[in-house]
Amino acid sequence: MKLSIVLSTQPASFSALAYKGELATNVAKIAMLGYDGVELAVRDPKLLDVENVKKNLAEHSLEVPAIGTGQAYGEEGLSFTHPDFKIREQAIARIKSQIDFAMHFDAVVILGLIRGKVEVNISEEQANSWLVAALKECAGYAAPKNVKLALEPINRYETNLIVTVRDGIELTERVASEYFGLLLDTFHMNIEEPDIDESIRAAGDKIFHFHVADSNRWYPGAGHVDFDRILKVLSSVGYDGFVSAEILPMPDPDTCAEQTIKCLRSII
Amino acid sequence: MKLSIVLSTQPASFSALAYKGELATNVAKIAMLGYDGVELAVRDPKLLDVENVKKNLAEHSLEVPAIGTGQAYGEEGLSFTHPDFKIREQAIARIKSQIDFAMHFDAVVILGLIRGKVEVNISEEQANSWLVAALKECAGYAAPKNVKLALEPINRYETNLIVTVRDGIELTERVASEYFGLLLDTFHMNIEEPDIDESIRAAGDKIFHFHVADSNRWYPGAGHVDFDRILKVLSSVGYDGFVSAEILPMPDPDTCAEQTIKCLRSII
Repeated sequence: MKLSIVLSTQPASFSALAYKGELATNVAKIAMLGYDGVELAVRDPKLLDVENVKKNLAEHSLEVPAIGTGQAYGEEGLSFTHPDFKIREQAIARIKSQIDFAMHFDAVVILGLIRGKVEVNISEEQANSWLVAALKECAGYAAPKNVKLALEPINRYETNLIVTVRDGIELTERVASEYFGLLLDTFHMNIEEPDIDESIRAAGDKIFHFHVADSNRWYPGAGHVDFDRILKVLSSVGYDGFVSAEILPMPDPDTCAEQTIKCLRSII
Repeated sequence: MKLSIVLSTQPASFSALAYKGELATNVAKIAMLGYDGVELAVRDPKLLDVENVKKNLAEHSLEVPAIGTGQAYGEEGLSFTHPDFKIREQAIARIKSQIDFAMHFDAVVILGLIRGKVEVNISEEQANSWLVAALKECAGYAAPKNVKLALEPINRYETNLIVTVRDGIELTERVASEYFGLLLDTFHMNIEEPDIDESIRAAGDKIFHFHVADSNRWYPGAGHVDFDRILKVLSSVGYDGFVSAEILPMPDPDTCAEQTIKCLRSII
C-alpha cells in the first residue's frame, strides 16, 4: 500500500488536517518525509490554479489519491440533504466541479460532511432520499470521466446520516453504481464499529479509499488502534489503494507527519 | 466488584440512560436481573420523595453507588463554568443539594456535564479557575457529611474541559481534597486515552466510581472494548467499588440490561 497525508489547499476551520495552506512548502516537506502522495482538501476547485498544483506535485513525484470536499460544508454550509433545494443543487454542482478537478489527478472524490445530516423537521427517509438522488446524479456525472466517489461513514457526533460501515454498504446498494463506494476511517470506526475487522471485510471491494488516524485522532501510534492487524485485514480484502493520514496536527504538523510514516512504514 | 446500572428518576433528553422514569417498575426489573445496585440520575433532588426512593430500593435490597447530576446541565443549563455568576452559583447550590441527597444512600456524587465547558470569549485559565473554586466549595461542603465527589473526564465532542484522565488527575491535584476524585468511563476512554490500562493505573486511588459502556456506547459485549483486561487492571489498582453501566438503551432497555450483566458476570 502507498501512503499519503491530507493537505488543505486553503486555510480551513476543520481541525483534522495535518497541514493547512502553503502548498509548495508543504508538498516539499511531505515528499521529503517519504510519502507517495498527498490527499488534497479542497473547498472549491475554482479557487485553485490546477496547472500550478500539478506542477508542484510533479516536481516531487507525488500522486493525489483523493480530494476531500468537506470544507464546502464546514465553511459554506453546502450539503446534499439541506432542506433548501437551492443549497442541495449547489452542493451537487460543487461535487461535479470536484469531479472535473479530480480527473487531472486520477483521484477519488471524497464525500464526507458534504452529505449533510438529518435536519430538524426532516424525516430520515426524506434525508436518505435526497442523499441517494444526489449520489446517483454525481455518480452518473463521474462515470464517463472515470472518477470514483467514496462516501465516508462518520461518527455520531459529527453527523446522524451514514454513521456506520453497515449504513454505508446499504447506501452503495441503493445508489448501485460501480463509481460509488466507501472511504473507511479508523478514527470513526473505533467509535462506531462493533468489530472493525468484520466491517472492513463486509465493505470489501466497495472500499475506494482508506483513512488512518489513531483512536484519539492523533498520528498512528499515539493511541490504541491496532494498525498492524487492521492493515492486514484491509490487504486481505484486496485493497491496494492509498492509506491516507487524516489526523490532528498534534503535537505539531511536522512531528505528526514524521510519526505517521514511521509507524506505518514499519507495518506496510 | 459489584454491578449497577443507571436509572433516571425523571424523563430526560440525555440518551445514555438504560432506564428512564417509572422508578418502582424499573427498580424491580434491575433487582430481578441480579444487579447489586442502581445508579440514580437525578436532575433535582427536591423533585423526589427521598423516603419513597429509599423504600423502593430497600424492598429489593439494592444499593445506590452514585448519583448522576448531568441533567441539571442538559435540561436547565446549570454549570460550574458558565460566564454568568448567578448560574455558577445555582450549579453549586444544586450540587450541595445532591450531596445532601447522596448522604441517604452513602452514594458518590458524580460531576459530569455540570462542570460545563470553556465558553466562547472565556479563557481556558478562567474556566479552570471557576471550576477549581466550585469544586473546592463543594468538596468542603461534602467532607463533614462524608460524601465523595467524582468528576468524569468526558470525550472532546461533549465538552472541552477535562477531557482526558490526565486532565482529571491534574484537577484532583489542584482541588486537593480527599473527598474529590474521578469517575472513569470506558466509552470516553476508548476515544481519549492513548492507553486505557495506563490511565487507570495513573488514576489509581483517585478512582471513586467506574462506568462501563462498550466502544459504541451499547452494552458491554456489543463493541470492541476488552472488559476482561480492563476490569483486571481496575482491580489491580485496588478499586473495589461498583462497576456501573451507563449505556444507550439499545436495542431496548431490557435487552441491554440483560446483556450487560451477562457479559460482566462472566468476568467479575
